[in-house]
Amino acid sequence: MFESAEIGHKIEKAIYKNEEPALREALLDAQFEMKEKGAFPVVILINGVDGAGKGETVNLLNEWMDPRLITTHAFGEASDEERERPRMWRYWRALPPKGRIGILFGSWYTEPIVGRVSGELKSSQLDQQIEDIVHFEKMLAHEGVLLLKFWFHLSKGKQEKRLKQLEKDPKTRWRVTEHDWDNFKCYDRFREISEHVLLESSTGEAPWLVVEGEDPYYRSLTVGKHILSNIRARLDRNKIPATVPAADVAPLLPPIDNLQILDTLTLDQELSKSDYEEQLEALQGRLNLLTRHPEFNNHSVIAVFEGNDAAGKGGSIRRITAAVDARHFSIIPVAAPTEEERAQPYLWRFWRHVPRKGRITIFDRSWYGRVLVERVEGYCSEADWMRAYSEINDFEEQLAENGVIMVKFWLAISSEEQLNRFKEREQVGFKRFKITDEDWRNRDKWGQYVHAVSDMVDRTSTATAPWTLVEANNKYFARIKIMKTLCDAIEARLGKDKEKEKDKKK
Amino acid sequence: MFESAEIGHKIEKAIYKNEEPALREALLDAQFEMKEKGAFPVVILINGVDGAGKGETVNLLNEWMDPRLITTHAFGEASDEERERPRMWRYWRALPPKGRIGILFGSWYTEPIVGRVSGELKSSQLDQQIEDIVHFEKMLAHEGVLLLKFWFHLSKGKQEKRLKQLEKDPKTRWRVTEHDWDNFKCYDRFREISEHVLLESSTGEAPWLVVEGEDPYYRSLTVGKHILSNIRARLDRNKIPATVPAADVAPLLPPIDNLQILDTLTLDQELSKSDYEEQLEALQGRLNLLTRHPEFNNHSVIAVFEGNDAAGKGGSIRRITAAVDARHFSIIPVAAPTEEERAQPYLWRFWRHVPRKGRITIFDRSWYGRVLVERVEGYCSEADWMRAYSEINDFEEQLAENGVIMVKFWLAISSEEQLNRFKEREQVGFKRFKITDEDWRNRDKWGQYVHAVSDMVDRTSTATAPWTLVEANNKYFARIKIMKTLCDAIEARLGKDKEKEKDKKK
Repeated sequence: MFESAEIGHKIEKAIYKNEEPALREALLDAQFEMKEKGAFPVVILINGVDGAGKGETVNLLNEWMDPRLITTHAFGEASDEERERPRMWRYWRALPPKGRIGILFGSWYTEPIVGRVSGELKSSQLDQQIEDIVHFEKMLAHEGVLLLKFWFHLSKGKQEKRLKQLEKDPKTRWRVTEHDWDNFKCYDRFREISEHVLLESSTGEAPWLVVEGEDPYYRSLTVGKHILSNIRARLDRNKIPATVPAADVAPLLPPIDNLQILDTLTLDQELSKSDYEEQLEALQGRLNLLTRHPEFNNHSVIAVFEGNDAAGKGGSIRRITAAVDARHFSIIPVAAPTEEERAQPYLWRFWRHVPRKGRITIFDRSWYGRVLVERVEGYCSEADWMRAYSEINDFEEQLAENGVIMVKFWLAISSEEQLNRFKEREQVGFKRFKITDEDWRNRDKWGQYVHAVSDMVDRTSTATAPWTLVEANNKYFARIKIMKTLCDAIEARLGKDKEKEKDKKK
Repeated sequence: MFESAEIGHKIEKAIYKNEEPALREALLDAQFEMKEKGAFPVVILINGVDGAGKGETVNLLNEWMDPRLITTHAFGEASDEERERPRMWRYWRALPPKGRIGILFGSWYTEPIVGRVSGELKSSQLDQQIEDIVHFEKMLAHEGVLLLKFWFHLSKGKQEKRLKQLEKDPKTRWRVTEHDWDNFKCYDRFREISEHVLLESSTGEAPWLVVEGEDPYYRSLTVGKHILSNIRARLDRNKIPATVPAADVAPLLPPIDNLQILDTLTLDQELSKSDYEEQLEALQGRLNLLTRHPEFNNHSVIAVFEGNDAAGKGGSIRRITAAVDARHFSIIPVAAPTEEERAQPYLWRFWRHVPRKGRITIFDRSWYGRVLVERVEGYCSEADWMRAYSEINDFEEQLAENGVIMVKFWLAISSEEQLNRFKEREQVGFKRFKITDEDWRNRDKWGQYVHAVSDMVDRTSTATAPWTLVEANNKYFARIKIMKTLCDAIEARLGKDKEKEKDKKK
């Protein structure tokens, strides 16, 4: 992968001086058009060998283009707010909105490579992380993000020469630290691992461009032209890139007997009010104790509530929050995305609410909107909701890896029960319980929702983030089942922590 | 202030049980109406003595009301991202948007009171902080925020009894820490200082309600009813609270000779291209060195650019950024506020961009829009832009206190020069330089802008955040003046740090 970036690429100064002005103009024009159309964001990754001109190139791009439409992020040590979230959280935070360019200096590639060079990561762990990255970048591509990945390379001999050169000049001496020389000692290992990572992550959607870093003219023109041609091509195509080919996602095959998972539930369940009250009190006490368990601070809980209209999501949520100190939970009611959210990939608006450790975040409706209402109502294309299943699984997997305890509830009521509740609400007359036209329209699509829910459960119920189907015709039964599921999930995880600790002590 | 909260307020259980359901219903209705109208946010501060029922009340409010429309924030130790910003940044972050309720558990009062009790703050410093808070709350009130401040009180004897009670019961023992007993030892001092703070900060816009904390029925009903009546009153008034009375702000008096500060500038200044290039190179080198100075990491720089259309803001900004590593600056182009920004007080959208230490943030247009374009175009009421002067001064003072180096530039060109530049741009034909109808319309209001700029400079040029008026008919001259001003400002501050250090060593 690096061989052709060690052959001494060079551009004459005269040629550079001749080409630069037109390139600059064209870049500025492209930037302006991007901003006006606001159709897609550009993410530029800058990675590679020390001394190969990464910093110089980033500065030059800011000089060539309009820096007001560029945001440059350098990823040094993570802040404590970042460390308490999944690894990718800090990169999601840094994504530019549509119409703008984000330059990520160091990126999601740095940690895995450095981790493997230092031996912190096993080879299999590295490969897992690369796979995660490939999924992530594929998602970005499907969301319309133009991702350009640059790797700046120098051969071993040239890196040594370059570092010595910088050290010699009093003006640039500060740039070479002992850390750089330590890194240099690992050159071969670094090269080998980088090459592996680049090969594995150079995909059709997001190929790497390896740039020989020695000659600034060559380097700068190469990067500038690559950026220009890619933005230009996208602007001229004038539409979001082709969506995921159908073949990429396993098709949804309806069961031939038409029996779906929701059909197997016995929605009417028995629980008397007095039994309910007794059990609820016990469960609330248990939940309260669990959230005050010292190990709880190493975790957070994400609870997702989905369900039929009027299935009792709100009431169930309130039974949970009543048991937990208000300082430790937050509820995210998911409605239409805001303007800032619409300028980002679909999952962005959920990533921003990923909690710190020791907290419970409850989503009242969630990212599953994509494969439920958006699918049924046709708010997004089939390709978009089809790819959402695996994107959601990736998202939840990252949460789980970070110590998040995930519970997901589908509250199911029968069509008749819903009708009764709608009528009841109309009689109560409280404005806040008002049944809207939309609620009535949704009822007409009952069958489609049954399909959508069954597909969703089939595709996104995983070991780390399982769905719990809640028979909810009886509210008492539903609330108890939810509380119990939540307590069990937390207890199981805290228990595991204990075991791990014991194992360590042995 | 606390006497009438030590007389043993009590409500019979029967009365409570009788009143609670209706209160709850009314609160839920009010909450729903707030959400539907989205007209104003409610901020509830919960402060007071340990053991006086703060936590219980917050939990109860979340139980009574719809917790999906409430966000509860507890302010413990600041995160590192928070510590690098002005004290108030974390509270700005936590403000609820219009239509929602934010409960702040511990608030901007906690630090000053605790700081004074521990002796970290001098009495004069405390008073300064109270004054800052009063200004801040006044601003919130004018921005339409409904602010409700609760202080939970217990007499000394009752606090002791309460802590002992909690300790006795195995179920609540965990709630009493050694820290609580340490605090109790300082009860008298805490009481005295709290009382002082409350008296000084109980204003017409944001009075304190002191609640005796012993009896839960009394406490809960008092708080619930106070919240309800205030939200109800605001909803029924159905409009934003009366704006600032004219008498509150010193009137703008035009000079009787009509000579204004902008008139005194000699807009045409000499600087040849070759002199410019030479000086620019030297200044860019100087700026680069300054940003790599070890002390620079204790500061950040905020540079504000305002000026006539086509005065050369963009070009000047690019001369700065060309000298600084792209990892260390960011540029905020200020355009129309987003939906999320419109749901917050005016300054919120600038607070969110306040930089961490060691960084330069450049605002291409800024919070001064309020007293420039919004004033001239009538986008806000006179009362709103009149009060903006002092709100802006408060904002910038907080930045300066946090170690932010502030520079503010007004780029002034003559009307004729602007006309020439407009015509030139129309000839160049680059889309990105297009002169819009709005640009032409702005020219018609030249005189009004001159007034607005003069008033702005008069009212907001302060020792810590002075305005620099830049004669900009000659672009070269303007850019050099800007670079030099910026370098001088940074150098002066870094120099001061050095002196301080020396003084310490002595």
